[in-house]
Amino acid sequence: MTLGELAEALGAELKGGDPSAEVLGIAGLEEVGPGQISYVQDARLLRRGEATPALALIAPEDCASEIKPLLSTADPRLAFAHALRILVPAGPPLQGVHPTAVIGEDVALGEGAAVGAHAVVGDGARLGARVQIHPLAIVGRGAQIGDDSIIHPHVTLYEGVRLGARVIVHAGSVVGSAGFGYVEDGEKLLHIPHVGTVVIEDEVEIGAGVTIDRATTGATVIGRGTKIDNLVHVAHNVKIGRNCVVAGQTGFSGSVTLGDGVVLAGQTGVADHVTVGRGAKAGARAAITRDIPDGVTVLGNPARPLGEQLRIEAALGKLPELRREMRKLAARIAALERARGGKRD
Amino acid sequence: MTLGELAEALGAELKGGDPSAEVLGIAGLEEVGPGQISYVQDARLLRRGEATPALALIAPEDCASEIKPLLSTADPRLAFAHALRILVPAGPPLQGVHPTAVIGEDVALGEGAAVGAHAVVGDGARLGARVQIHPLAIVGRGAQIGDDSIIHPHVTLYEGVRLGARVIVHAGSVVGSAGFGYVEDGEKLLHIPHVGTVVIEDEVEIGAGVTIDRATTGATVIGRGTKIDNLVHVAHNVKIGRNCVVAGQTGFSGSVTLGDGVVLAGQTGVADHVTVGRGAKAGARAAITRDIPDGVTVLGNPARPLGEQLRIEAALGKLPELRREMRKLAARIAALERARGGKRD
Amino acid sequence: MTLGELAEALGAELKGGDPSAEVLGIAGLEEVGPGQISYVQDARLLRRGEATPALALIAPEDCASEIKPLLSTADPRLAFAHALRILVPAGPPLQGVHPTAVIGEDVALGEGAAVGAHAVVGDGARLGARVQIHPLAIVGRGAQIGDDSIIHPHVTLYEGVRLGARVIVHAGSVVGSAGFGYVEDGEKLLHIPHVGTVVIEDEVEIGAGVTIDRATTGATVIGRGTKIDNLVHVAHNVKIGRNCVVAGQTGFSGSVTLGDGVVLAGQTGVADHVTVGRGAKAGARAAITRDIPDGVTVLGNPARPLGEQLRIEAALGKLPELRREMRKLAARIAALERARGGKRD
Repeated sequence: MTLGELAEALGAELKGGDPSAEVLGIAGLEEVGPGQISYVQDARLLRRGEATPALALIAPEDCASEIKPLLSTADPRLAFAHALRILVPAGPPLQGVHPTAVIGEDVALGEGAAVGAHAVVGDGARLGARVQIHPLAIVGRGAQIGDDSIIHPHVTLYEGVRLGARVIVHAGSVVGSAGFGYVEDGEKLLHIPHVGTVVIEDEVEIGAGVTIDRATTGATVIGRGTKIDNLVHVAHNVKIGRNCVVAGQTGFSGSVTLGDGVVLAGQTGVADHVTVGRGAKAGARAAITRDIPDGVTVLGNPARPLGEQLRIEAALGKLPELRREMRKLAARIAALERARGGKRD
Repeated sequence: MTLGELAEALGAELKGGDPSAEVLGIAGLEEVGPGQISYVQDARLLRRGEATPALALIAPEDCASEIKPLLSTADPRLAFAHALRILVPAGPPLQGVHPTAVIGEDVALGEGAAVGAHAVVGDGARLGARVQIHPLAIVGRGAQIGDDSIIHPHVTLYEGVRLGARVIVHAGSVVGSAGFGYVEDGEKLLHIPHVGTVVIEDEVEIGAGVTIDRATTGATVIGRGTKIDNLVHVAHNVKIGRNCVVAGQTGFSGSVTLGDGVVLAGQTGVADHVTVGRGAKAGARAAITRDIPDGVTVLGNPARPLGEQLRIEAALGKLPELRREMRKLAARIAALERARGGKRD
Repeated sequence: MTLGELAEALGAELKGGDPSAEVLGIAGLEEVGPGQISYVQDARLLRRGEATPALALIAPEDCASEIKPLLSTADPRLAFAHALRILVPAGPPLQGVHPTAVIGEDVALGEGAAVGAHAVVGDGARLGARVQIHPLAIVGRGAQIGDDSIIHPHVTLYEGVRLGARVIVHAGSVVGSAGFGYVEDGEKLLHIPHVGTVVIEDEVEIGAGVTIDRATTGATVIGRGTKIDNLVHVAHNVKIGRNCVVAGQTGFSGSVTLGDGVVLAGQTGVADHVTVGRGAKAGARAAITRDIPDGVTVLGNPARPLGEQLRIEAALGKLPELRREMRKLAARIAALERARGGKRD
């Protein structure tokens, strides 16, 4: 592909450079080599981009360079994502049902669905068109998977869970394990049967090593377009809205509700039955113990509105000093008290 | 099953309603439909229960309703758990040894033990009666599993670990990986061989994605009846008592000891060699760095007794204000000092 | 093996005891039985060691005992590690390629490489000499594994990742899943293709349930000799130096850099693009939000230099008292103000 063709494919304007130059690859600023393209997110990075051997740089529209050809675009990061897709073709998809795969009875396999080596598909499961079940994954009895979804190796989909279309589940994740709910029965803890399920809507992407428990009754729900990072724990009866972003090692206790478009940074925790409003955000390691209104950003443990928490953190740094100050003030007060002959504790 | 039969099975008193009415199912208050039963934990929820289309409500004995038939019982949550078990029969258990399962030499399979597709059972392993090894699980060489235990898909039981009866291990969990212990050998880190094992006593239930390391020597022990949630990390030589409850993403460093009946909320951490006393509790995200006496509840990082930590958290919220107050006091002291003609720093 | 032979094998001096006595085993102080050897890390533990039924104790050179024979050595913990290796032989390694293993096309198997039951090795993968792929593990297309590496059950190595020699990956870990990077495309979140890889250098050891994402472009790198504990999350483009120690449940956001010899205690988090200097250390649960210079130890959230954080934690415990003190000072100031006839707020 030539630089000119790439510009056209991206809808970008080529500023400078030879449109017929061949594009040999694509890489970030730190790895880019000769003949490859890279990108700069904003004008501040342009210098760094110019110092690389890149053939050309995807750059925002307010950039101009006398050194490097620019692929000028409104959203360089989006253009870079498109360029990665164009220039680095994905490997060939799985094809067909591997002879070692174990397929149960009454399984519906959509057109072009593929099942890899040693994968197991339980009785009555329904796989949509072009679904890919990678080697060593298991689809439980009666589970449903929509068109074009990809289930990576070592994923466990328990019985009866329902995944929409274009869902991706990365290796080792578990969907539909029993929720963690017990009731005391004399001295013993009796497990509350979790007879509900998990519903994962279209275009959800789930990282590696994630665990999503089934509901007691009803369903644990991950809303359309939501993205979940690695090692996240989603307890029973959680309802996550649409287009949320949940970073790594975050944990949700039972019956949490997230509105649409919520963004939680890594290692966040949300206490049971808490509601996080639409568009709310949490900084890394936030411990959300109470409801968060729409659009509010929180931080800290317990989580507080961002500005408040930052003031607290700043004050914390001064806390030892504050104690020293206080002792000095006490001494000055004592001196004043002595001076007027009074005597106070 | 009729409402009357259900009342009898639960040992509950039916207050109102037609004992011959057919029970069509069971669900929580948010999902319950016509003909189904639901439950209210306490009197405050009765109104909400009455507003549902439920056929009848399991309710505590101090409740009375003119709108809904009640299944009156001392412990509604326990009765709900029993009713779930009665009304929603579990799917059929695994049967037999799947032809694709790989069974080693000298394996003892108890009566009715079942091994699923592509599961692997190592040489010399001993499986009790009615043990279920789900598809794609692996039981290491010489591992022992007591009667009626259930090993879900993708579980790894390393060589020689010992599980009691009625143990459940959910998908993707790992029991018996080498502990994380190293010693410096010049510039390198040399792994200390972990030649101990893991002992999981009867009726322990382990969630999905849990990792339990084997002991250096001796055993890492999970005591009878203890329940462990998803993505919990249990390091080498940890000894967890009986009937403990450990919520999701909690981590135990090496050689931690927990007494019986300890309850740890989610994302708790316990430092190495710490002892947590019998019946102690920790709130979510507690960082337990020192021994906790029996029966004490802690919170915070580092964990402190609950009341103390709550006072600190309340004071924290006032900390920026405290600094402002202090500056005002300093100004007033300075004014007093000026007034008496003295001069102080 | 006799006590004398063991002393010689360890390079230790046998002080007291019968060199021809047979060593029956080895165990920690809490489990050691008659005829076995144990070890005491330092002189303070000698009494405890003397009270055990041990045949002899590995002990530091400054120890002397009239009760127990000592294997006197400069580094007892290192000698104990060696003794464990000598006295408790590891089980037999995997042998050959199991008939149920699925081996792709153009796979290179080094001399003595073994592949277990139901393991899957993708097309074009290259396995070095004596590599062990345990049952139910998967090696993706074109992945490379150096000599003597061990891949435990249920590990997923995605396409094209590269592991060095003598690497160990414990059960259920995932290497090479797509990084968690998205860009907004109108209302949707578009995944940024992660076309990079993961490079794991020689002698790295990775615990169970770890997830390591591949880079956007270039590689996520784990440096030679680094040890990673269970349930750690390593995001895309992270570069971890050599001989680092990363304890359980730690999480790295994207593009973090760690120098050589960094030690992170459990449940630490490192924010994206942060650099942690060579030899730096973090206490448990640290939240590293800014660059850490070489050799500095940090603690807390946000992480601060250790001494500073400890002073803050101490002051925190006094915070409620500080507020009470402040109210008392305010009262004394008010009294002084009244005394001089002034009137102040």
